[in-house]
Amino acid sequence: MGKIRTPLYNALIQHCQLNPLSFHVPGHKNGILYDSNQFPHFRQTLQLDLTEIANLDDLYAPEGIIKEAQQLAAELYGVSSTYFLVNGSTVGNLAMILANCQKGDVVFVQRNSHKSVMHGLELAGAKPVFLSPKFDEGFQVPSYVPVETVKKAFQKYPQVKAIILTSPTYYGLTYTKLNELIQFAHSRRVPVLVDEAHGAHLIASSSFPKSAVSVGADVVVQSAHKTLPAMTMGAFLHVNSKLVNEEKISHYIHMLQTSSPSYLIMASLDLARAYVEDMLTKEEELNQTLHKYVEIFQQLDYIDIVSSKDPFVAVDPLKLTIRSQNAMSGYDLMKVFEKARIYPELADPLNVLFVLPFAKEFQDTGHFSKVNDILKNTQTSKMEWGLQKEVQIDEISQLSISYEAMENCTKTFVSLEEAIGEISAEMIIPYPPGIPLLMRGEKITKNQIEALKRLMKLRANFQGGKKLAEGLISIFKKR
Amino acid sequence: MGKIRTPLYNALIQHCQLNPLSFHVPGHKNGILYDSNQFPHFRQTLQLDLTEIANLDDLYAPEGIIKEAQQLAAELYGVSSTYFLVNGSTVGNLAMILANCQKGDVVFVQRNSHKSVMHGLELAGAKPVFLSPKFDEGFQVPSYVPVETVKKAFQKYPQVKAIILTSPTYYGLTYTKLNELIQFAHSRRVPVLVDEAHGAHLIASSSFPKSAVSVGADVVVQSAHKTLPAMTMGAFLHVNSKLVNEEKISHYIHMLQTSSPSYLIMASLDLARAYVEDMLTKEEELNQTLHKYVEIFQQLDYIDIVSSKDPFVAVDPLKLTIRSQNAMSGYDLMKVFEKARIYPELADPLNVLFVLPFAKEFQDTGHFSKVNDILKNTQTSKMEWGLQKEVQIDEISQLSISYEAMENCTKTFVSLEEAIGEISAEMIIPYPPGIPLLMRGEKITKNQIEALKRLMKLRANFQGGKKLAEGLISIFKKR
Repeated sequence: MGKIRTPLYNALIQHCQLNPLSFHVPGHKNGILYDSNQFPHFRQTLQLDLTEIANLDDLYAPEGIIKEAQQLAAELYGVSSTYFLVNGSTVGNLAMILANCQKGDVVFVQRNSHKSVMHGLELAGAKPVFLSPKFDEGFQVPSYVPVETVKKAFQKYPQVKAIILTSPTYYGLTYTKLNELIQFAHSRRVPVLVDEAHGAHLIASSSFPKSAVSVGADVVVQSAHKTLPAMTMGAFLHVNSKLVNEEKISHYIHMLQTSSPSYLIMASLDLARAYVEDMLTKEEELNQTLHKYVEIFQQLDYIDIVSSKDPFVAVDPLKLTIRSQNAMSGYDLMKVFEKARIYPELADPLNVLFVLPFAKEFQDTGHFSKVNDILKNTQTSKMEWGLQKEVQIDEISQLSISYEAMENCTKTFVSLEEAIGEISAEMIIPYPPGIPLLMRGEKITKNQIEALKRLMKLRANFQGGKKLAEGLISIFKKR
Repeated sequence: MGKIRTPLYNALIQHCQLNPLSFHVPGHKNGILYDSNQFPHFRQTLQLDLTEIANLDDLYAPEGIIKEAQQLAAELYGVSSTYFLVNGSTVGNLAMILANCQKGDVVFVQRNSHKSVMHGLELAGAKPVFLSPKFDEGFQVPSYVPVETVKKAFQKYPQVKAIILTSPTYYGLTYTKLNELIQFAHSRRVPVLVDEAHGAHLIASSSFPKSAVSVGADVVVQSAHKTLPAMTMGAFLHVNSKLVNEEKISHYIHMLQTSSPSYLIMASLDLARAYVEDMLTKEEELNQTLHKYVEIFQQLDYIDIVSSKDPFVAVDPLKLTIRSQNAMSGYDLMKVFEKARIYPELADPLNVLFVLPFAKEFQDTGHFSKVNDILKNTQTSKMEWGLQKEVQIDEISQLSISYEAMENCTKTFVSLEEAIGEISAEMIIPYPPGIPLLMRGEKITKNQIEALKRLMKLRANFQGGKKLAEGLISIFKKR
């Protein structure tokens, strides 16, 4: 990176250089409580793990370096204001939903949203109307909600207060007609709130799919830590319209985030924004580097790079999905790479997903040379089943019971078979990718149970599903 | 620190040593996207900023190193279970309140609680009954809620569902009869939830005030980052009783925290716990070191060390509060130390608060030698007023309007004078210490406005109070 403006990062460095004596939090006292021999990793960096002392501003009443750093981010993304988040996109999703949905409000929600979106709806006591995404035949995962589905939903629920979408998906799938969808919503004065956790880098190249901030979404939340070089938990919330109540958004951010935000994470957001600015001038190197990574995967045997046949899908070039040519499950295929010390982002029954570096230089580390040998010699159980069946869900659906009613229901555990037709009392989330397979308050279908069994058979990881290992699901008892 | 058990930290170090190639989040790819010359602080530490990859467990479904690290913490604190928090004590307070207070429930709340407690009550839609703390004449700040006040409140509100207390206060004041208070609450089967953000270290020495975990509080939240050497945002939530619903507590933690928790912060919690274990064997050195710091402050001219005359107050020896002998305001006195590159925790109109290192070695850095000279030569405006008047508030009080009703009220800005007798539509929080002076939904008194004016005159920092700088307060319009 060349000459860059990083006011927040610079202020922390300057404070270190004062040789300051800390009688304030955090308790590590600028790192000196760590033995520098025993904990080399921590001691130095913790000098920057500061707090709201002189000249270091206050995230919740910004007037100095934090205000300046947030404004630089807003300028870069072309939005009216940007909020630095230290509790991930999760807190951004919660705040944008709580600020725009009151109790009982109907909101349209993309069915394959992240659990934090579902949690936001529950906290708000909203009435979610779930819109089913298309199922991408190439990737064999859900993709986008077509504008046609949104129009149908408007006819059925004209009182809708907001639309909550996810773009890109975890696998990098975006919808090329998102602008049309947003224009339609705006023609009805309904704001579109986008979980763009995986898309903080999209503005960096004209060859990338368009970011939701560029096509007029009203609020956009981005995990800077996912694709930009920010520290884990660092994220942006962009406010991009007058259709939403910014005062309420900032109220909920203030409410849900720690009152001691990490200056390390905030400084890394400042650096990440500067990194994107720098990358805008190096678009060609960036795209060449990404191409080199694709070539490396193309040279591997027994492996296909997955692509979409959907004319309305544009795939984020930072996401690369592969699949075994000889029916090795995604979970087993991931282990092959891990043996070579190559760590992918996630596996599903069929695919392995890699997040390529958002970098202008290609670094050949020699790790890939081993992969082909390991692939040749790996004995794996073939997948017991072919292509993943789509979990059939109505195009437009609601929960069978309100969040408030759930509070007063008693629960019981039943077997997977018995659960079919009952109302789920827990959210079951294959993690990664963290998208709920079963929603709390949703009537459980045969398809969902079958999908769940397939995932369990393949040893997928789950959040929720307290007694899933014992083959039990929590349901609400009938009155 | 000698030989220590740090399973989580060790696992991260071991992963680094594999020379892994990252195709997963975070986007900095184990730090390599940072130029090591330009960003020496970051590059090395970010190797540990990992995510839920092979063998690194999952905070929200812990079965490996995170489970083990949390169990070691539970053993140390002598509680049934400990949750690692990465969104500060804030998320712990929110979760313990949401899990124990349903909409409309009456809960007793210490009036001088942190804003996160107030936010939790608002999210839960609870009916807070505020219990006024005693006002400590020595420190000139609010201290504890006497057991007698709690008993009175029980007579008035026998339907109370929970008691929410803060101990120690920001200034380190604890109540020696807390055990008695808790026993009384338990005799009525009412759980006591304690915000012990400032007390994570209290179990380390028999000469320290007792921790709420030791006297039977049902849920205790501690900011490990405030007094232990954990990274900012690292905290513990301890569950210590069957009176509370642990499943709900973990549900809300999962709901309100990022789905990408920082492994750096979690590892620092693992180290912080080990640090306390080690300190238990070095009690004497610890107390000697703390005494040496006190001596340094005693040797300063024109300065008094503040103490309490209240027989039921025990002061945390890690907190040291001083005051000018010649009526210099706390804010001005703090600047004197900052000139000497000594950074205190906070100032109020009268006091300056220092958080002493929780360390067994004393480090003389020479910074203090300058302080006396600066004190001699500093011209400062004397305080315009003497001792801080206590803000008179009823011993037992309620909000004038429910949180739900607030949602549907319109607001308007009025002058400070006009605001007296009106219902505040915003929380106004002098920060630090982050304790609300004015609550949202509270009838504004003359005393509060006077206290507010004094703080503004002394250039205190505020959160909330959107137009306070213009002398305006937001109130709810009468219907």
